[in-house]
Amino acid sequence: MPSTALTHLTTLVTNDPAYGDGGPLGLIEDAALVVEDGTVVWAGPARQVPAADETYDASGRSAIPGFVDSHSHLVFAGDRTAEFAARMSGRPYTAGGIRTTVAATREASDDALSANLARHLREMLRQGTTTAETKSGYGLSTAQEARALRLARAHTPETTFLGAHLVPPEYEKDPDGYTALVAGEMLQACAPYARWVDAFCERGAFDGDQTRAVLTAGREQGLVPRVHANQLSHGPGVQIAVELGAASADHCTHLTGADVDALAHSETVATLLPGCEFSTRSPYPDARRLLEAGVTVALSTDCNPGSSFTSSMPFCIAIAVREMGMTPDEALWSATAGGARALRRTDVGRLSPGARADLALLDAPSPVHLAYRPGVPLVAEVWRDGVREI
Amino acid sequence: MPSTALTHLTTLVTNDPAYGDGGPLGLIEDAALVVEDGTVVWAGPARQVPAADETYDASGRSAIPGFVDSHSHLVFAGDRTAEFAARMSGRPYTAGGIRTTVAATREASDDALSANLARHLREMLRQGTTTAETKSGYGLSTAQEARALRLARAHTPETTFLGAHLVPPEYEKDPDGYTALVAGEMLQACAPYARWVDAFCERGAFDGDQTRAVLTAGREQGLVPRVHANQLSHGPGVQIAVELGAASADHCTHLTGADVDALAHSETVATLLPGCEFSTRSPYPDARRLLEAGVTVALSTDCNPGSSFTSSMPFCIAIAVREMGMTPDEALWSATAGGARALRRTDVGRLSPGARADLALLDAPSPVHLAYRPGVPLVAEVWRDGVREI
Ligand SMILES: [Zn+2]
Ligand SMILES: [Zn+2]
Repeated sequence: MPSTALTHLTTLVTNDPAYGDGGPLGLIEDAALVVEDGTVVWAGPARQVPAADETYDASGRSAIPGFVDSHSHLVFAGDRTAEFAARMSGRPYTAGGIRTTVAATREASDDALSANLARHLREMLRQGTTTAETKSGYGLSTAQEARALRLARAHTPETTFLGAHLVPPEYEKDPDGYTALVAGEMLQACAPYARWVDAFCERGAFDGDQTRAVLTAGREQGLVPRVHANQLSHGPGVQIAVELGAASADHCTHLTGADVDALAHSETVATLLPGCEFSTRSPYPDARRLLEAGVTVALSTDCNPGSSFTSSMPFCIAIAVREMGMTPDEALWSATAGGARALRRTDVGRLSPGARADLALLDAPSPVHLAYRPGVPLVAEVWRDGVREI
Repeated sequence: MPSTALTHLTTLVTNDPAYGDGGPLGLIEDAALVVEDGTVVWAGPARQVPAADETYDASGRSAIPGFVDSHSHLVFAGDRTAEFAARMSGRPYTAGGIRTTVAATREASDDALSANLARHLREMLRQGTTTAETKSGYGLSTAQEARALRLARAHTPETTFLGAHLVPPEYEKDPDGYTALVAGEMLQACAPYARWVDAFCERGAFDGDQTRAVLTAGREQGLVPRVHANQLSHGPGVQIAVELGAASADHCTHLTGADVDALAHSETVATLLPGCEFSTRSPYPDARRLLEAGVTVALSTDCNPGSSFTSSMPFCIAIAVREMGMTPDEALWSATAGGARALRRTDVGRLSPGARADLALLDAPSPVHLAYRPGVPLVAEVWRDGVREI
C-alpha cells in the first residue's frame, strides 16, 4: 500500500510527549503526518516531512487522534423521547424507564438491532469516533444477552457483557437467583463474544457482593472487568473495581477520599460520562479532584436511549470543560488517549509512529475549538486505518 | 416555478396553532408540506396532501421551520482561542478581551471580513439557521462601522448598528464624546445599511442616559431599537428597551420583578443567549420565570469570538432545556418563532401557508431529539426559499 503524507495541518495532536511541545498532547504546529498500511509512520513539522508516495493537503485543518468512546450501550431498540420530554418538562412519567428498552430490544429482530447499532456507530464516526466500545444489557436472558454480543461483535472488538445491568421483571423477587444466572450460564454463553465484563453496582441494581460475584466469574472466563460505579450514590463500586484490577470504573460521580485514593494508586481509569448528568439534570463528577490526585481520566458518551442519548464526543469535551473543571487540553486527552487507556489499547488514542492511522480533521486552527465552539460540527473528515471514511 | 410536495415527514412543526395538535408548535404527525415559488402553500396530514408538480420523499425525517438566529456578531477578524483556553484553565490572561477583536477587525481587508462572515453564515445554515441577524460593533469609528454594515448587508437584511458596543481606546477619557459620535455622524453613515440600532447597556459600557441617546437617535433615522440589557448585572437596559419600544431586550440574565413585569406588558421580546453563559461560566437566565410571566422568549447564539463562539441553535436549545427551565417544545418555539418575533418577521419562523419555505429536516422522528440528543448533528437537510441548499 502506498504511503500518504498529510500535509498543511495547522495543528497535530499526537498524544505522545516525545513529540512537538513535549506536553501530554505532544502538540505540533504546522505539522505533517505520514501513514502507510493503515499505520502512522512519521509525525513532525511540515518542513521536515519525508518523501511519500502520495500527498494529501489538509488545507490548514487540525488533526487529532480519532475519539475513543469507551462506554456506550448501542444494542437496543426503540427510543424514550416521551420519557425525556416529560422529565425535562417536570411532568410525571411512570410508564417506561429502562424496562421499556428491555422490552423493545427483546422483541426486535437481529436485523433491526444490527441496523440500529450500525446507524449509531456511523453517527459516532461522523463525529470523529474511530474506536467504540458497546455493551449488552437490554436482553437480560441467556439467549438475549448472547445475541446482543454476537451482533455487537460483528461491528466492534470492544464488546462488554453487561448481564448485570438490572434485574429483569422475571427475577424481581429473586435477585440472587438472577445474579447466579448471570455469573453462570449467561456468562458461559456470552464470553465467546465479549472482551469485557461489567456490572451496574448501585442501590436498586447490584450490591457489592453481587457485583464481585459477576466480575470474578467473568475474569475466570478470560474477560477483564469494568464497573458502573458510584453513579447515583456512594457505594462499593470503585473499591471493587480497583480490588479486581478493572480497566475502568465508570461514572465516579459520588466519591469518598478513599475512593479517589484507591483510583490514584491503581491501573483503573476513571471514566466520566457527562452526557448522563446533562440529560438527567444531575450533579457532574469532579474531574479536577481526580486529576489533581493523579487519577487517569477518560471521557465517554455513555450513549444510550435512556439517560444519555448523545453520541458526540465533542459535546462531552465541551461539558467537561464547562462543568467538570477540565482544561480544553485535558478533556481532549481524556476523550482520546484516556479512552484508549480505559480499553487498554496502545494502538489508538495517539498519532505517533506505530499507532493506527485513525484520526479526525477539524475545521479549526486548534483543537481548543472543540470546547470553544460548543455544538458546532467541527469534524470535517475522519480517517480510519489510513483511509478516509468521512 | 413548479410546486413540490415534501412527503413522508414523521413530524412537521408549523408553529401555527391553527394546524395539527393546535398547540403553539402546531405539530402534525405523519405530515406533508407543499411549497411553490419559495412559499409554503399547504401543510397537513400526509394522507390529505394535494397534487403537486413534484414529490420529494423526506424519508421519515422531521421538518421544523429554519432557525431564526436573531443575535450574532459575525463581522470580525481573528479569534480568541488563547483567551478562552486561559479562562477555562484558570490561568490569568490580561492581554486581549474584546479590544483584540476590534484591533484585528480594523486591520482586516473587506474581502477577509466578508469571507469570514460568509463562512460563519454557511456554518449556521448547515445547522439549520435560515435567517440570521448580525451586528457591527468591532469597528468603533464612523468609517469602520459603516464598512462593517455595508459588508453585512450584502449577506443578510437583518443588520444592526452597534457602534455603542464599547468605548474604543481613542475615547477612553471621553465616553460622552464617543456617545455623541455614535448618535451623530456614525449613525448617519451607518443608517443606510442597517435595520436595527443596538447598545450595550452595562456598567463599564454605556449607562442608561447614553443608551437612551443612541437608541433615540437611531429611531429618528428609522432604525428600530434592540438592547444588550441586564447581562452582567441589574441595570436600566430592560426598562429602556420597553420604554423605547425595542423589538428585543437581549441577555436578560439579571432581572428584577419590575423588569419581568415590564417585558410581560410590552411587545419587547426577551432574547436569551445561553451560549454566552456557557462559555463564560456565568449563571444562566431564568427562562421559566419569564415564560410564567407571559413574556415572549427568543433563543439565539450570540455567536462572537469572545463570549460565545457557537453558531449552533440546536446546542442553545439543549442548554436552554438543561439549564433554563424550558421544555423541549418551548425551546424549539423560541429558536424559531421566538426569533422571528424578535426580528418582527411574520414570514419566517413558521411553516404554514404564506410563510417562506425555509426549513430544516432532522434525522429524528421528533424535534424533541434536539434536546434529547445534545451535540449530535441532527440537521440533515436545509431548504431556503423552497430550494434545498444543504
Ligand atoms: Zn452505562
Ligand atoms: Zn451580543
